[in-house]
Amino acid sequence: MSKWISVEKARQEFSIGPDVEIRGWVRTRRDSKGGFSFIEINDGSCFGNLQVVAPAELSNYADEVQKLSVGCSVVVVGEIKESPAAGQPTELHATKVRVLGWADPETYPMQKKRHTFEKLREWAHLRPRTNTFGAVARVRNQISQSIHQFFTDNGFFYTHTPIITASDCEGAGEMFRVTSLDLEMLAKKGGPVNYKYDFFEKPAHLTVSGQLNGEAYATALGRIYTFGPTFRAENSNTSRHLAEFWMVEPEAAFFDLADNMKLAEDFLKRIFTDCLNKCGEDMDFFDQRIEKGKIDQLKAVIEKPFAHMTYTDAVDVLKSTTEKFEYPVEWGTDLQAEHERFLTEKHVGGPLILTDYPSTIKPFYMRVSDDGRTVAAMDVLVPGVGEIIGGSQREERLDVLLSRMDAAGLNQADYDWYIDLRRFGTVPHAGFGLGLERAVQYATGMANIRDVIPFPRTPGNAGF
Amino acid sequence: MSKWISVEKARQEFSIGPDVEIRGWVRTRRDSKGGFSFIEINDGSCFGNLQVVAPAELSNYADEVQKLSVGCSVVVVGEIKESPAAGQPTELHATKVRVLGWADPETYPMQKKRHTFEKLREWAHLRPRTNTFGAVARVRNQISQSIHQFFTDNGFFYTHTPIITASDCEGAGEMFRVTSLDLEMLAKKGGPVNYKYDFFEKPAHLTVSGQLNGEAYATALGRIYTFGPTFRAENSNTSRHLAEFWMVEPEAAFFDLADNMKLAEDFLKRIFTDCLNKCGEDMDFFDQRIEKGKIDQLKAVIEKPFAHMTYTDAVDVLKSTTEKFEYPVEWGTDLQAEHERFLTEKHVGGPLILTDYPSTIKPFYMRVSDDGRTVAAMDVLVPGVGEIIGGSQREERLDVLLSRMDAAGLNQADYDWYIDLRRFGTVPHAGFGLGLERAVQYATGMANIRDVIPFPRTPGNAGF
Repeated sequence: MSKWISVEKARQEFSIGPDVEIRGWVRTRRDSKGGFSFIEINDGSCFGNLQVVAPAELSNYADEVQKLSVGCSVVVVGEIKESPAAGQPTELHATKVRVLGWADPETYPMQKKRHTFEKLREWAHLRPRTNTFGAVARVRNQISQSIHQFFTDNGFFYTHTPIITASDCEGAGEMFRVTSLDLEMLAKKGGPVNYKYDFFEKPAHLTVSGQLNGEAYATALGRIYTFGPTFRAENSNTSRHLAEFWMVEPEAAFFDLADNMKLAEDFLKRIFTDCLNKCGEDMDFFDQRIEKGKIDQLKAVIEKPFAHMTYTDAVDVLKSTTEKFEYPVEWGTDLQAEHERFLTEKHVGGPLILTDYPSTIKPFYMRVSDDGRTVAAMDVLVPGVGEIIGGSQREERLDVLLSRMDAAGLNQADYDWYIDLRRFGTVPHAGFGLGLERAVQYATGMANIRDVIPFPRTPGNAGF
Repeated sequence: MSKWISVEKARQEFSIGPDVEIRGWVRTRRDSKGGFSFIEINDGSCFGNLQVVAPAELSNYADEVQKLSVGCSVVVVGEIKESPAAGQPTELHATKVRVLGWADPETYPMQKKRHTFEKLREWAHLRPRTNTFGAVARVRNQISQSIHQFFTDNGFFYTHTPIITASDCEGAGEMFRVTSLDLEMLAKKGGPVNYKYDFFEKPAHLTVSGQLNGEAYATALGRIYTFGPTFRAENSNTSRHLAEFWMVEPEAAFFDLADNMKLAEDFLKRIFTDCLNKCGEDMDFFDQRIEKGKIDQLKAVIEKPFAHMTYTDAVDVLKSTTEKFEYPVEWGTDLQAEHERFLTEKHVGGPLILTDYPSTIKPFYMRVSDDGRTVAAMDVLVPGVGEIIGGSQREERLDVLLSRMDAAGLNQADYDWYIDLRRFGTVPHAGFGLGLERAVQYATGMANIRDVIPFPRTPGNAGF
């Protein structure tokens, strides 16, 4: 009786021995003149393949084994032996090769010839079978696991904030509408929308952030984080935007901006450390084939303390440099991507935390500093990606919060529950948001955000 | 310089010593005649409170300490000492009590007097500050962490399948529409809907299951699981239904129904074992105050092998029992909740896996058995909740899948990418779905599903 093990295990020396079974897909087949074939098998458990040595003595050698092509699914039984070949500790000497499914080389799109990443997006259901997208999926998984482990290790509770919301909380960008009304009927009938017949009996949207809900739980459980899908209905057809993406948002009671900055730095370092330690083969691939020097870049991020700079100092740097920018810089205006990238890539040459932005360009919930004109905001910038984290200490003072809401033209009644958090046992607290896809892009060097999420949603694209 | 530690840590004997700082919220205050006050502090890190002994010598004793009421936020500095009181190993002797935020007892709703759970839903932003909802939040977190750990331990990769989808995949219930069109404008203008102006340029919905997308990744990475929000626009105002809930869906290549059943059983046992081991105080509370005997019930689930029974045998049992049912039972009809609960609660008295349902009552993607009239489906039933897991081996044979789709009246062109998974290197595979809220209900004994998710979405309710 043979024992089924993963390719990842089969490639380790401790698996050497008889009666092993491998189940996976053919990556390549090469027939030797010596009366056997070499078949590379991958089962998704790791980047590398297991080499199978299939002798001509197999009963189905001519009929099946010699017809195997990329993508065919097989079960191989045999003995794991030490491999004489370089670069692989083991190989599987087959006593049985059973074909489960064929993949006609005439019609199967995932052939060895390289497609562009753009072309592969048309086969979002098959692209994880390629080296690149398999590696992206494993690194994305690792980063997700690290997120949960890091926050658990630091006393944060995973909290599920709602996806559908009837409050357009911070007005952060355009939101998708959610409805149970029949749009065709609505348009046909004409007249005003009767929300009595809509599921939630009022206009509802997809969330743009779980932060405000997260604050309610942070001011009860102390430390929480959300990790879930987030939505923007912005018509941005760029390599940096998705209509649906995953965001992690920690929120901690009794944290000030300094605590928040330390948390963000420790967090990013943990994520990238885990990628290097736990996805070695995948990371080697990205380092060699996607962005040369990626591993050294991540090691530098892990080893060095992040630079800190106030917005005011950053404006001074940007105004005094000889670098040419498309957009002018003036105190009180938002920094553009070109400015952020100059600061992190050229001025600092590593991760940079910018703090203390003008209150006029930041949302109402950020804490007003003693100077009266800045807020305790922070953006973490990294080379190549720009802003990867945005966060702040929150305004915990009821009177200041209310006057900020007034200034922003917000209706207090819409935020009554949020204001309650300051009415009853208010505490200093802080948090931030990390876009998962930006983190995966930074870890892997993948240039287009559509290539680091399994099924990207962008203007005109909700297929699969 | 005092060191900030959590209440959870401060309650352990190893924390005994000077210069400790606690930050949290007042649960109770009791003034002793001996010239000091006892203040119970909770910071959400655990179920129990830390007892603070505040002497009258404190400079703000009369002005502030003696005015503390439930919900006030404080920072307390002092020494952790062994407690002479029963039921708590330590207490904090305060040298300083700083009040951060007051909670006016006249207006703060979370007073000691007990509100009903129904009433507390009106304060979804404040209810996590109560014993019950704090405990629910911690157990929900623990189950979520156990989900990630269990699947990681078993070689599964976390995969994010899309929330917005343009394909009404399995027709599993009513779906919410997602649109960037202005409903008011649409209704006012009248006439047909022009999808050229909608974000995705075609009708789009919120997902009811990530399974089909998950299969694409399972047939590339081998073993994957999804864990994310899922939606139903069903107008069910019951204690068992939510419009938005979280679902975990593992999918494994090369798994048959037996592998799938074992996975589901191991998975549930791991979840409940972790709840008992890691949420001891919370579970004691549920056992004593929410559902007597809960802990023993979970222990029995963990220790005993799950019972197995085919649908056909179950129908025989139901037809031969003297138990009265509202709905009649006949081979070929779906079992009702009353039947499922009889089987798991009275007939078996523990978890039960029902298998091999008639193909006519199950979706097209379930694998047809050799008898031609059943499919390799499984439902896991548990006492008190009924169905907690539903799953199946999937139909991997292209011809059988296509004829099942025809029989179901599905348009093959809509599923072309899904069919590709059988055209190219098809493999046997299987998976299941677990509703997170059902698992949290079962672990805690909470009767209403609206009380095990932070901000429930139900007909007419999308507030907060």
